[in-house]
Amino acid sequence: MTRVRVPASSANLGPGFDVLAVALGLHVEVSVEPADRLEVVASGEGSDLPLDREHLAARVACEVAGTDRLRIEVDSAIPVGRGLGSSAALAVAAAAAAGAGDPFSWGVKVDGHPENAAASAFGGLVVATTIGGGAVWRRLALDPGLVFVALVPDKELLTAAARRVLADQVRREDAVFNLGRLGLLIAGLADLRQLLPEAGDDRLHQDARASLFPEAPALLAGLRRAGALTSFWSGAGTTLIGVCAREEGPAVQEAGRELLERHSVKGRVLLVEAAERGITQAGGPGH
Amino acid sequence: MTRVRVPASSANLGPGFDVLAVALGLHVEVSVEPADRLEVVASGEGSDLPLDREHLAARVACEVAGTDRLRIEVDSAIPVGRGLGSSAALAVAAAAAAGAGDPFSWGVKVDGHPENAAASAFGGLVVATTIGGGAVWRRLALDPGLVFVALVPDKELLTAAARRVLADQVRREDAVFNLGRLGLLIAGLADLRQLLPEAGDDRLHQDARASLFPEAPALLAGLRRAGALTSFWSGAGTTLIGVCAREEGPAVQEAGRELLERHSVKGRVLLVEAAERGITQAGGPGH
Repeated sequence: MTRVRVPASSANLGPGFDVLAVALGLHVEVSVEPADRLEVVASGEGSDLPLDREHLAARVACEVAGTDRLRIEVDSAIPVGRGLGSSAALAVAAAAAAGAGDPFSWGVKVDGHPENAAASAFGGLVVATTIGGGAVWRRLALDPGLVFVALVPDKELLTAAARRVLADQVRREDAVFNLGRLGLLIAGLADLRQLLPEAGDDRLHQDARASLFPEAPALLAGLRRAGALTSFWSGAGTTLIGVCAREEGPAVQEAGRELLERHSVKGRVLLVEAAERGITQAGGPGH
Repeated sequence: MTRVRVPASSANLGPGFDVLAVALGLHVEVSVEPADRLEVVASGEGSDLPLDREHLAARVACEVAGTDRLRIEVDSAIPVGRGLGSSAALAVAAAAAAGAGDPFSWGVKVDGHPENAAASAFGGLVVATTIGGGAVWRRLALDPGLVFVALVPDKELLTAAARRVLADQVRREDAVFNLGRLGLLIAGLADLRQLLPEAGDDRLHQDARASLFPEAPALLAGLRRAGALTSFWSGAGTTLIGVCAREEGPAVQEAGRELLERHSVKGRVLLVEAAERGITQAGGPGH
Protein backbone atom coordinates (compact mmCIF):
# COMPACT_ATOMS: atom_id res chain seq x y z
CA MET A 1 0.00 0.00 0.00
CA THR A 2 1.19 3.47 -0.80
CA ARG A 3 0.20 6.28 1.48
CA VAL A 4 1.20 9.77 0.39
CA ARG A 5 1.10 13.18 1.98
CA VAL A 6 0.63 16.36 -0.04
CA PRO A 7 0.48 19.99 1.12
CA ALA A 8 -2.21 22.61 0.53
CA SER A 9 -1.35 25.68 -1.52
CA SER A 10 -2.13 29.35 -1.67
CA ALA A 11 -2.24 30.73 -5.21
CA ASN A 12 -2.02 34.24 -6.66
CA LEU A 13 -0.47 35.82 -3.56
CA GLY A 14 -1.89 39.17 -4.67
CA PRO A 15 -0.20 40.26 -7.89
CA GLY A 16 0.75 36.78 -9.16
CA PHE A 17 -2.72 36.10 -10.50
CA ASP A 18 -3.02 32.56 -11.91
CA VAL A 19 0.77 32.00 -11.87
CA LEU A 20 2.26 32.13 -8.36
CA ALA A 21 1.66 29.70 -5.49
CA VAL A 22 3.18 28.60 -2.21
CA ALA A 23 2.79 25.21 -0.56
CA LEU A 24 1.43 25.44 2.98
CA GLY A 25 1.82 23.09 5.93
CA LEU A 26 -1.73 21.77 5.89
CA HIS A 27 -1.77 18.31 4.40
CA VAL A 28 -3.99 15.69 2.83
CA GLU A 29 -3.00 12.05 3.12
CA VAL A 30 -4.27 9.47 0.67
CA SER A 31 -3.74 5.74 0.54
CA VAL A 32 -4.83 3.43 -2.25
CA GLU A 33 -4.85 -0.36 -2.05
CA PRO A 34 -6.44 -3.22 -4.01
CA ALA A 35 -9.90 -4.27 -2.83
CA ASP A 36 -12.84 -6.35 -3.99
CA ARG A 37 -14.83 -3.27 -4.88
CA LEU A 38 -14.52 0.51 -4.75
CA GLU A 39 -14.48 1.78 -1.22
CA VAL A 40 -13.88 5.43 -0.29
CA VAL A 41 -13.20 6.34 3.33
CA ALA A 42 -12.67 9.91 4.41
CA SER A 43 -11.84 11.76 7.59
CA GLY A 44 -11.10 15.37 8.39
CA GLU A 45 -11.89 18.25 6.04
CA GLY A 46 -14.23 17.38 3.15
CA SER A 47 -15.33 14.09 4.73
CA ASP A 48 -18.94 15.25 4.49
CA LEU A 49 -18.76 15.03 0.66
CA PRO A 50 -20.38 11.96 -0.98
CA LEU A 51 -18.02 8.99 -0.74
CA ASP A 52 -18.84 7.43 -4.09
CA ARG A 53 -17.12 7.03 -7.46
CA GLU A 54 -17.63 10.73 -8.16
CA HIS A 55 -15.36 11.63 -5.24
CA LEU A 56 -12.33 13.39 -6.69
CA ALA A 57 -9.88 10.94 -5.12
CA ALA A 58 -11.84 8.00 -6.54
CA ARG A 59 -12.05 9.47 -10.03
CA VAL A 60 -8.31 10.11 -10.18
CA ALA A 61 -7.15 6.91 -8.48
CA CYS A 62 -9.42 4.67 -10.59
CA GLU A 63 -8.31 6.29 -13.82
CA VAL A 64 -4.63 6.04 -12.86
CA ALA A 65 -4.95 2.42 -11.67
CA GLY A 66 -7.21 1.37 -14.55
CA THR A 67 -9.59 -0.33 -12.13
CA ASP A 68 -12.20 0.64 -9.59
CA ARG A 69 -11.41 -2.31 -7.32
CA LEU A 70 -9.66 -0.05 -4.84
CA ARG A 71 -9.91 0.97 -1.24
CA ILE A 72 -9.12 4.69 -1.03
CA GLU A 73 -8.55 6.45 2.26
CA VAL A 74 -8.47 10.21 2.46
CA ASP A 75 -7.54 12.16 5.58
CA SER A 76 -7.39 15.89 5.03
CA ALA A 77 -6.54 18.99 7.04
CA ILE A 78 -7.18 21.26 4.02
CA PRO A 79 -10.42 23.26 4.20
CA VAL A 80 -12.51 22.77 1.04
CA GLY A 81 -13.71 25.63 -1.18
CA ARG A 82 -11.68 28.29 0.66
CA GLY A 83 -8.93 28.98 -1.87
CA LEU A 84 -6.38 26.66 -0.29
CA GLY A 85 -5.97 24.36 -3.29
CA SER A 86 -7.75 21.39 -1.73
CA SER A 87 -8.76 19.85 -5.06
CA ALA A 88 -5.31 20.21 -6.63
CA ALA A 89 -3.72 18.68 -3.51
CA LEU A 90 -6.23 15.82 -3.43
CA ALA A 91 -5.81 15.09 -7.14
CA VAL A 92 -2.01 15.08 -6.85
CA ALA A 93 -2.18 12.88 -3.75
CA ALA A 94 -4.67 10.39 -5.23
CA ALA A 95 -2.64 10.13 -8.44
CA ALA A 96 0.60 9.58 -6.52
CA ALA A 97 -0.98 7.03 -4.18
CA ALA A 98 -2.37 5.13 -7.18
CA GLY A 99 1.10 4.98 -8.74
CA ALA A 100 0.95 7.70 -11.40
CA GLY A 101 4.32 8.53 -12.94
CA ASP A 102 3.54 12.25 -13.07
CA PRO A 103 1.11 13.21 -10.29
CA PHE A 104 1.67 16.92 -11.08
CA SER A 105 0.01 16.53 -14.47
CA TRP A 106 -3.01 14.89 -12.80
CA GLY A 107 -3.31 17.88 -10.54
CA VAL A 108 -3.21 20.20 -13.53
CA LYS A 109 -5.71 18.09 -15.45
CA VAL A 110 -8.28 17.89 -12.68
CA ASP A 111 -7.93 21.33 -11.22
CA GLY A 112 -6.88 23.38 -14.24
CA HIS A 113 -4.47 25.44 -12.14
CA PRO A 114 -0.83 24.52 -12.75
CA GLU A 115 0.33 26.85 -9.97
CA ASN A 116 -1.68 25.06 -7.26
CA ALA A 117 -0.71 21.65 -8.63
CA ALA A 118 3.00 22.57 -8.80
CA ALA A 119 3.06 23.86 -5.23
CA SER A 120 1.32 20.72 -3.97
CA ALA A 121 3.45 18.32 -6.01
CA PHE A 122 6.84 19.96 -5.50
CA GLY A 123 6.49 22.20 -2.43
CA GLY A 124 7.90 25.66 -1.77
CA LEU A 125 7.19 28.80 -3.75
CA VAL A 126 6.56 28.23 -7.44
CA VAL A 127 5.62 30.01 -10.61
CA ALA A 128 3.67 27.93 -13.10
CA THR A 129 1.87 28.51 -16.36
CA THR A 130 0.93 26.83 -19.61
CA ILE A 131 3.23 26.96 -22.63
CA GLY A 132 2.18 25.36 -25.88
CA GLY A 133 -0.51 23.35 -24.13
CA GLY A 134 1.85 21.97 -21.48
CA ALA A 135 2.18 23.00 -17.86
CA VAL A 136 5.60 24.31 -16.83
CA TRP A 137 6.77 25.40 -13.41
CA ARG A 138 9.89 26.75 -11.75
CA ARG A 139 10.92 27.04 -8.12
CA LEU A 140 11.48 30.50 -6.64
CA ALA A 141 13.46 31.30 -3.50
CA LEU A 142 11.45 31.48 -0.26
CA ASP A 143 12.83 32.92 2.97
CA PRO A 144 12.56 30.22 5.68
CA GLY A 145 11.88 32.96 8.22
CA LEU A 146 8.37 33.53 6.85
CA VAL A 147 5.16 32.08 8.25
CA PHE A 148 1.59 32.50 7.06
CA VAL A 149 -1.49 33.53 8.99
CA ALA A 150 -4.61 32.29 7.20
CA LEU A 151 -8.03 33.75 7.95
CA VAL A 152 -10.32 30.91 6.87
CA PRO A 153 -13.96 32.02 6.85
CA ASP A 154 -16.63 29.37 7.26
CA LYS A 155 -18.21 30.71 4.07
CA GLU A 156 -17.09 28.96 0.89
CA LEU A 157 -16.57 30.68 -2.45
CA LEU A 158 -16.58 28.70 -5.66
CA THR A 159 -13.72 29.50 -8.00
CA ALA A 160 -16.14 29.60 -10.93
CA ALA A 161 -18.20 32.32 -9.24
CA ALA A 162 -15.07 34.21 -8.27
CA ARG A 163 -13.92 34.08 -11.88
CA ARG A 164 -17.21 35.28 -13.38
CA VAL A 165 -16.81 38.70 -11.73
CA LEU A 166 -13.58 39.34 -13.66
CA ALA A 167 -13.63 41.41 -16.86
CA ASP A 168 -11.96 40.15 -20.05
CA GLN A 169 -10.17 43.44 -20.62
CA VAL A 170 -7.93 45.26 -18.18
CA ARG A 171 -6.14 48.58 -18.31
CA ARG A 172 -2.54 48.35 -19.49
CA GLU A 173 -1.46 50.32 -16.45
CA ASP A 174 -3.13 47.78 -14.17
CA ALA A 175 -1.27 44.96 -15.92
CA VAL A 176 1.98 46.89 -15.39
CA PHE A 177 0.97 47.53 -11.76
CA ASN A 178 0.76 43.78 -11.19
CA LEU A 179 4.02 43.09 -13.04
CA GLY A 180 5.86 45.52 -10.78
CA ARG A 181 4.31 44.17 -7.59
CA LEU A 182 5.00 40.60 -8.72
CA GLY A 183 8.68 41.42 -9.10
CA LEU A 184 8.77 43.16 -5.73
CA LEU A 185 6.93 40.24 -4.13
CA ILE A 186 9.32 37.65 -5.55
CA ALA A 187 12.25 39.72 -4.23
CA GLY A 188 10.59 40.07 -0.82
CA LEU A 189 9.57 36.43 -0.43
CA ALA A 190 13.20 35.48 -1.15
CA ASP A 191 14.39 37.84 1.60
CA LEU A 192 11.82 39.02 4.12
CA ARG A 193 13.84 42.13 4.96
CA GLN A 194 13.07 43.27 1.41
CA LEU A 195 9.32 42.61 1.55
CA LEU A 196 7.18 45.72 1.10
CA PRO A 197 3.50 45.74 2.15
CA GLU A 198 2.54 47.00 -1.32
CA ALA A 199 4.24 44.00 -2.92
CA GLY A 200 1.08 42.04 -2.13
CA ASP A 201 -1.22 44.50 -3.87
CA ASP A 202 -3.21 43.58 -6.96
CA ARG A 203 -5.42 45.22 -9.57
CA LEU A 204 -6.44 42.20 -11.64
CA HIS A 205 -8.76 40.22 -9.41
CA GLN A 206 -9.00 41.16 -5.72
CA ASP A 207 -11.04 44.34 -6.11
CA ALA A 208 -13.60 42.63 -8.34
CA ARG A 209 -13.84 39.66 -5.99
CA ALA A 210 -14.42 41.89 -2.99
CA SER A 211 -18.01 42.22 -4.28
CA LEU A 212 -18.39 38.59 -3.18
CA PHE A 213 -16.67 39.14 0.18
CA PRO A 214 -17.13 42.79 1.18
CA GLU A 215 -15.16 42.46 4.44
CA ALA A 216 -12.00 41.32 2.63
CA PRO A 217 -10.32 44.72 2.07
CA ALA A 218 -10.68 45.72 5.73
CA LEU A 219 -9.42 42.32 6.90
CA LEU A 220 -6.39 42.53 4.59
CA ALA A 221 -5.57 46.03 5.82
CA GLY A 222 -6.07 44.86 9.42
CA LEU A 223 -3.56 42.04 8.97
CA ARG A 224 -0.93 44.53 7.81
CA ARG A 225 -1.66 46.88 10.68
CA ALA A 226 -1.30 43.95 13.07
CA GLY A 227 2.23 43.24 11.86
CA ALA A 228 1.92 41.16 8.69
CA LEU A 229 4.61 42.16 6.19
CA THR A 230 2.00 41.95 3.43
CA SER A 231 -1.41 40.36 2.85
CA PHE A 232 -3.59 39.11 -0.01
CA TRP A 233 -6.38 36.75 -1.00
CA SER A 234 -5.52 33.05 -1.10
CA GLY A 235 -6.55 31.77 -4.52
CA ALA A 236 -10.14 32.77 -5.25
CA GLY A 237 -10.87 33.10 -1.52
CA THR A 238 -12.43 33.12 0.89
CA THR A 239 -9.18 32.59 2.78
CA LEU A 240 -7.04 35.68 3.33
CA ILE A 241 -3.33 35.42 4.06
CA GLY A 242 -0.99 37.56 6.13
CA VAL A 243 2.70 36.93 5.46
CA CYS A 244 4.70 37.33 8.65
CA ALA A 245 8.19 37.16 10.05
CA ARG A 246 8.20 34.04 12.24
CA GLU A 247 8.37 35.95 15.51
CA GLU A 248 5.30 38.02 14.60
CA GLY A 249 3.17 35.01 13.63
CA PRO A 250 1.40 34.34 16.95
CA ALA A 251 0.53 38.02 17.49
CA VAL A 252 -0.85 38.36 13.96
CA GLN A 253 -2.84 35.15 14.43
CA GLU A 254 -4.37 36.58 17.59
CA ALA A 255 -5.09 39.88 15.84
CA GLY A 256 -6.67 37.90 13.01
CA ARG A 257 -9.13 36.32 15.43
CA GLU A 258 -10.11 39.75 16.70
CA LEU A 259 -10.47 41.03 13.14
CA LEU A 260 -12.88 38.24 12.21
CA GLU A 261 -14.90 38.94 15.32
CA ARG A 262 -14.96 42.70 14.79
CA HIS A 263 -16.18 42.25 11.22
CA SER A 264 -18.64 39.49 12.22
CA VAL A 265 -17.01 36.95 9.91
CA LYS A 266 -17.24 33.43 11.28
CA GLY A 267 -14.16 31.35 10.70
CA ARG A 268 -10.80 30.07 11.91
CA VAL A 269 -7.37 31.63 11.99
CA LEU A 270 -4.48 29.26 11.23
CA LEU A 271 -0.77 29.88 11.66
CA VAL A 272 1.06 27.74 9.11
CA GLU A 273 4.56 27.20 7.81
CA ALA A 274 5.38 26.96 4.14
CA ALA A 275 5.72 23.32 3.11
CA GLU A 276 9.19 22.93 1.69
CA ARG A 277 8.43 19.49 0.30
CA GLY A 278 5.60 18.46 -2.00
CA ILE A 279 4.60 14.80 -2.32
CA THR A 280 6.08 12.62 0.40
CA GLN A 281 5.52 9.10 1.61
CA ALA A 282 3.32 9.10 4.68
CA GLY A 283 3.31 6.61 7.47
CA GLY A 284 0.40 4.13 7.23
CA PRO A 285 -2.52 4.24 9.69
CA GLY A 286 -0.65 1.90 11.99
CA HIS A 287 2.42 4.09 12.26
CA MET B 1 36.85 66.71 -9.22
CA THR B 2 34.54 63.76 -9.13
CA ARG B 3 34.51 61.44 -12.08
CA VAL B 4 31.87 58.69 -12.00
CA ARG B 5 31.14 55.67 -14.12
CA VAL B 6 27.62 54.33 -14.65
CA PRO B 7 26.41 51.33 -16.66
CA ALA B 8 23.82 51.16 -19.44
CA SER B 9 20.65 49.17 -18.86
CA SER B 10 18.24 46.99 -20.75
CA ALA B 11 14.64 47.33 -19.56
CA ASN B 12 11.54 45.15 -19.95
CA LEU B 13 13.43 41.96 -20.87
CA GLY B 14 10.31 40.75 -22.65
CA PRO B 15 7.55 40.16 -20.12
CA GLY B 16 8.79 42.64 -17.48
CA PHE B 17 7.28 45.61 -19.27
CA ASP B 18 8.15 48.89 -17.50
CA VAL B 19 9.38 47.10 -14.34
CA LEU B 20 12.41 44.87 -14.97
CA ALA B 21 15.92 45.95 -16.00
CA VAL B 22 19.48 44.67 -16.03
CA ALA B 23 22.64 46.79 -15.93
CA LEU B 24 24.98 46.09 -18.83
CA GLY B 25 28.72 46.51 -19.14
CA LEU B 26 28.62 49.54 -21.43
CA HIS B 27 29.42 52.66 -19.46
CA VAL B 28 29.17 56.41 -19.48
CA GLU B 29 31.74 58.41 -17.52
CA VAL B 30 30.99 61.93 -16.36
CA SER B 31 33.15 64.42 -14.52
CA VAL B 32 32.03 67.77 -13.13
CA GLU B 33 34.36 70.49 -11.86
CA PRO B 34 34.08 74.20 -11.11
CA ALA B 35 34.80 76.51 -14.05
CA ASP B 36 34.41 80.16 -15.05
CA ARG B 37 31.46 79.37 -17.27
CA LEU B 38 29.48 76.33 -18.45
CA GLU B 39 31.54 74.12 -20.64
CA VAL B 40 30.32 70.73 -21.96
CA VAL B 41 32.80 68.37 -23.57
CA ALA B 42 31.73 65.02 -24.99
CA SER B 43 33.35 62.04 -26.59
CA GLY B 44 32.10 58.66 -27.73
CA GLU B 45 28.41 57.87 -28.23
CA GLY B 46 26.11 60.90 -28.31
CA SER B 47 28.97 63.36 -28.77
CA ASP B 48 27.27 64.67 -31.91
CA LEU B 49 24.43 66.14 -29.80
CA PRO B 50 24.53 69.92 -29.15
CA LEU B 51 26.97 70.66 -26.30
CA ASP B 52 25.01 73.49 -24.72
CA ARG B 53 23.01 74.04 -21.55
CA GLU B 54 20.23 71.88 -22.93
CA HIS B 55 22.53 68.86 -22.93
CA LEU B 56 21.09 66.35 -20.46
CA ALA B 57 24.29 66.17 -18.41
CA ALA B 58 24.41 69.97 -18.16
CA ARG B 59 20.77 70.29 -17.13
CA VAL B 60 21.17 67.73 -14.36
CA ALA B 61 24.61 68.81 -13.13
CA CYS B 62 23.68 72.52 -13.04
CA GLU B 63 20.48 71.87 -11.14
CA VAL B 64 22.23 69.60 -8.64
CA ALA B 65 25.16 71.99 -8.16
CA GLY B 66 22.98 75.11 -8.13
CA THR B 67 25.30 76.86 -10.58
CA ASP B 68 26.13 76.71 -14.27
CA ARG B 69 29.79 77.58 -13.73
CA LEU B 70 30.86 74.02 -14.39
CA ARG B 71 33.04 72.09 -16.76
CA ILE B 72 31.26 68.83 -17.58
CA GLU B 73 32.99 66.02 -19.41
CA VAL B 74 31.00 63.12 -20.83
CA ASP B 75 32.56 60.03 -22.36
CA SER B 76 30.01 57.40 -23.32
CA ALA B 77 30.01 53.91 -24.77
CA ILE B 78 26.19 53.70 -24.59
CA PRO B 79 24.44 54.02 -27.97
CA VAL B 80 21.75 56.73 -27.85
CA GLY B 81 18.10 56.16 -28.74
CA ARG B 82 18.47 52.40 -29.03
CA GLY B 83 16.73 51.21 -25.86
CA LEU B 84 19.89 50.87 -23.78
CA GLY B 85 18.94 53.43 -21.14
CA SER B 86 21.46 56.05 -22.23
CA SER B 87 19.51 58.98 -20.81
CA ALA B 88 18.86 57.32 -17.44
CA ALA B 89 22.55 56.39 -17.19
CA LEU B 90 23.67 59.89 -18.15
CA ALA B 91 21.28 61.55 -15.72
CA VAL B 92 22.39 59.27 -12.87
CA ALA B 93 26.06 59.85 -13.73
CA ALA B 94 25.73 63.63 -14.05
CA ALA B 95 23.84 63.85 -10.76
CA ALA B 96 26.42 61.70 -8.96
CA ALA B 97 29.34 63.62 -10.43
CA ALA B 98 27.75 66.90 -9.36
CA GLY B 99 27.41 65.61 -5.80
CA ALA B 100 23.74 64.65 -5.57
CA GLY B 101 22.82 62.70 -2.46
CA ASP B 102 20.41 60.46 -4.36
CA PRO B 103 21.48 60.12 -8.00
CA PHE B 104 18.86 57.37 -8.52
CA SER B 105 16.03 59.84 -8.01
CA TRP B 106 17.57 62.17 -10.60
CA GLY B 107 17.59 59.31 -13.08
CA VAL B 108 13.93 58.64 -12.35
CA LYS B 109 13.03 62.33 -12.58
CA VAL B 110 14.75 62.93 -15.91
CA ASP B 111 14.01 59.67 -17.60
CA GLY B 112 10.69 58.68 -16.06
CA HIS B 113 11.71 55.02 -15.93
CA PRO B 114 12.61 53.82 -12.43
CA GLU B 115 13.74 50.44 -13.77
CA ASN B 116 16.42 51.90 -16.04
CA ALA B 117 17.54 54.35 -13.35
CA ALA B 118 17.73 51.63 -10.68
CA ALA B 119 19.80 49.32 -12.89
CA SER B 120 22.20 52.17 -13.73
CA ALA B 121 22.46 53.46 -10.17
CA PHE B 122 22.71 50.12 -8.36
CA GLY B 123 23.77 47.56 -10.97
CA GLY B 124 22.63 43.98 -11.47
CA LEU B 125 19.09 42.80 -12.17
CA VAL B 126 16.37 44.93 -10.62
CA VAL B 127 12.63 45.33 -10.43
CA ALA B 128 11.42 48.89 -9.96
CA THR B 129 8.12 50.70 -9.97
CA THR B 130 6.32 53.65 -8.47
CA ILE B 131 4.40 53.35 -5.21
CA GLY B 132 2.51 56.31 -3.81
CA GLY B 133 4.41 58.67 -6.08
CA GLY B 134 7.83 57.38 -5.03
CA ALA B 135 10.17 55.09 -6.95
CA VAL B 136 11.02 51.80 -5.26
CA TRP B 137 13.35 49.08 -6.44
CA ARG B 138 14.59 45.69 -5.31
CA ARG B 139 17.54 43.56 -6.41
CA LEU B 140 16.84 40.16 -7.99
CA ALA B 141 19.31 37.28 -8.28
CA LEU B 142 21.28 37.13 -11.54
CA ASP B 143 23.32 34.09 -12.58
CA PRO B 144 26.92 35.23 -13.17
CA GLY B 145 27.21 32.68 -15.98
CA LEU B 146 24.98 34.77 -18.25
CA VAL B 147 26.16 37.16 -20.96
CA PHE B 148 24.15 39.34 -23.31
CA VAL B 149 24.38 39.64 -27.09
CA ALA B 150 22.94 42.99 -28.19
CA LEU B 151 21.92 43.60 -31.79
CA VAL B 152 22.16 47.38 -32.01
CA PRO B 153 20.67 48.66 -35.29
CA ASP B 154 21.90 52.00 -36.62
CA LYS B 155 18.26 53.07 -36.77
CA GLU B 156 17.01 54.88 -33.67
CA LEU B 157 13.54 54.57 -32.23
CA LEU B 158 12.16 57.21 -29.92
CA THR B 159 10.52 55.84 -26.79
CA ALA B 160 7.59 58.22 -27.28
CA ALA B 161 6.87 56.78 -30.72
CA ALA B 162 7.29 53.24 -29.43
CA ARG B 163 4.80 54.02 -26.68
CA ARG B 164 2.15 55.56 -28.95
CA VAL B 165 1.59 52.23 -30.68
CA LEU B 166 0.45 50.62 -27.41
CA ALA B 167 -3.26 50.29 -26.62
CA ASP B 168 -4.65 51.45 -23.27
CA GLN B 169 -6.57 48.22 -22.75
CA VAL B 170 -5.18 44.72 -22.88
CA ARG B 171 -6.76 41.31 -22.62
CA ARG B 172 -6.73 39.83 -19.13
CA GLU B 173 -5.23 36.65 -20.52
CA ASP B 174 -2.38 38.64 -22.03
CA ALA B 175 -1.70 40.27 -18.68
CA VAL B 176 -1.63 36.80 -17.09
CA PHE B 177 0.61 35.58 -19.93
CA ASN B 178 3.15 38.24 -18.99
CA LEU B 179 2.85 37.56 -15.27
CA GLY B 180 3.66 33.89 -15.84
CA ARG B 181 6.59 34.62 -18.15
CA LEU B 182 7.92 37.23 -15.74
CA GLY B 183 7.99 34.66 -12.95
CA LEU B 184 9.67 32.09 -15.21
CA LEU B 185 12.17 34.72 -16.37
CA ILE B 186 13.10 35.76 -12.83
CA ALA B 187 13.62 32.08 -11.95
CA GLY B 188 15.72 31.52 -15.09
CA LEU B 189 17.87 34.63 -14.74
CA ALA B 190 18.69 33.51 -11.19
CA ASP B 191 19.78 30.08 -12.48
CA LEU B 192 20.49 29.79 -16.19
CA ARG B 193 19.84 26.03 -16.17
CA GLN B 194 16.20 26.94 -15.42
CA LEU B 195 15.83 29.52 -18.19
CA LEU B 196 13.17 28.63 -20.77
CA PRO B 197 13.15 30.33 -24.20
CA GLU B 198 9.48 31.23 -23.70
CA ALA B 199 10.34 33.05 -20.46
CA GLY B 200 11.36 36.02 -22.64
CA ASP B 201 8.03 36.16 -24.47
CA ASP B 202 5.69 39.11 -24.15
CA ARG B 203 2.20 40.14 -25.20
CA LEU B 204 2.06 43.70 -23.86
CA HIS B 205 4.42 45.66 -26.08
CA GLN B 206 6.71 43.74 -28.43
CA ASP B 207 4.12 42.73 -31.02
CA ALA B 208 2.74 46.26 -31.31
CA ARG B 209 6.22 47.71 -31.58
CA ALA B 210 7.17 45.31 -34.35
CA SER B 211 5.14 47.58 -36.65
CA LEU B 212 8.00 50.07 -36.18
CA PHE B 213 10.71 47.44 -36.69
CA PRO B 214 9.31 44.66 -38.88
CA GLU B 215 12.50 42.58 -38.84
CA ALA B 216 12.46 42.27 -35.04
CA PRO B 217 10.47 39.02 -34.67
CA ALA B 218 12.68 37.16 -37.16
CA LEU B 219 15.83 38.49 -35.50
CA LEU B 220 14.62 37.46 -32.03
CA ALA B 221 13.77 33.97 -33.29
CA GLY B 222 17.14 33.79 -35.04
CA LEU B 223 18.99 34.59 -31.82
CA ARG B 224 17.26 31.68 -30.08
CA ARG B 225 18.01 29.31 -32.96
CA ALA B 226 21.65 30.39 -32.77
CA GLY B 227 21.91 29.33 -29.14
CA ALA B 228 20.56 32.20 -27.05
CA LEU B 229 18.64 30.85 -24.04
CA THR B 230 15.98 33.49 -24.64
CA SER B 231 15.64 36.83 -26.46
CA PHE B 232 13.61 40.05 -26.30
CA TRP B 233 13.54 43.74 -27.13
CA SER B 234 15.78 45.99 -25.05
CA GLY B 235 13.60 48.79 -23.70
CA ALA B 236 11.61 50.37 -26.50
CA GLY B 237 14.21 49.19 -29.05
CA THR B 238 15.72 49.17 -31.50
CA THR B 239 18.25 47.00 -29.68
CA LEU B 240 17.41 43.32 -29.42
CA ILE B 241 18.99 41.11 -26.76
CA GLY B 242 19.92 37.45 -26.74
CA VAL B 243 20.61 36.04 -23.26
CA CYS B 244 23.37 33.43 -23.44
CA ALA B 245 25.38 31.05 -21.33
CA ARG B 246 28.87 32.54 -21.28
CA GLU B 247 30.40 29.83 -23.48
CA GLU B 248 27.78 30.40 -26.18
CA GLY B 249 28.24 34.18 -26.27
CA PRO B 250 30.82 34.47 -29.08
CA ALA B 251 28.93 32.06 -31.38
CA VAL B 252 25.64 33.90 -30.82
CA GLN B 253 27.40 37.22 -31.45
CA GLU B 254 28.71 35.90 -34.77
CA ALA B 255 25.27 34.53 -35.65
CA GLY B 256 23.83 37.93 -34.76
CA ARG B 257 26.05 39.60 -37.33
CA GLU B 258 24.85 37.17 -39.98
CA LEU B 259 21.24 37.75 -38.95
CA LEU B 260 21.54 41.53 -39.36
CA GLU B 261 23.13 41.03 -42.77
CA ARG B 262 20.56 38.49 -43.93
CA HIS B 263 17.73 40.85 -42.94
CA SER B 264 19.51 43.92 -44.36
CA VAL B 265 19.53 45.68 -41.00
CA LYS B 266 22.58 47.90 -40.60
CA GLY B 267 24.02 47.86 -37.10
CA ARG B 268 26.49 46.44 -34.60
CA VAL B 269 26.44 43.31 -32.49
CA LEU B 270 27.88 43.66 -29.00
CA LEU B 271 28.72 40.93 -26.52
CA VAL B 272 28.38 42.39 -23.02
CA GLU B 273 28.47 41.26 -19.43
CA ALA B 274 25.93 42.29 -16.86
CA ALA B 275 27.29 45.16 -14.75
CA GLU B 276 27.19 43.97 -11.17
CA ARG B 277 27.91 47.45 -9.83
CA GLY B 278 26.04 50.67 -10.54
CA ILE B 279 27.63 54.04 -9.83
CA THR B 280 31.38 53.79 -9.23
CA GLN B 281 34.22 56.26 -8.97
CA ALA B 282 36.13 56.36 -12.25
CA GLY B 283 39.77 57.17 -12.78
CA GLY B 284 40.32 60.72 -14.07
CA PRO B 285 41.35 61.45 -17.67
CA GLY B 286 45.00 61.16 -16.72
CA HIS B 287 44.63 57.66 -15.31
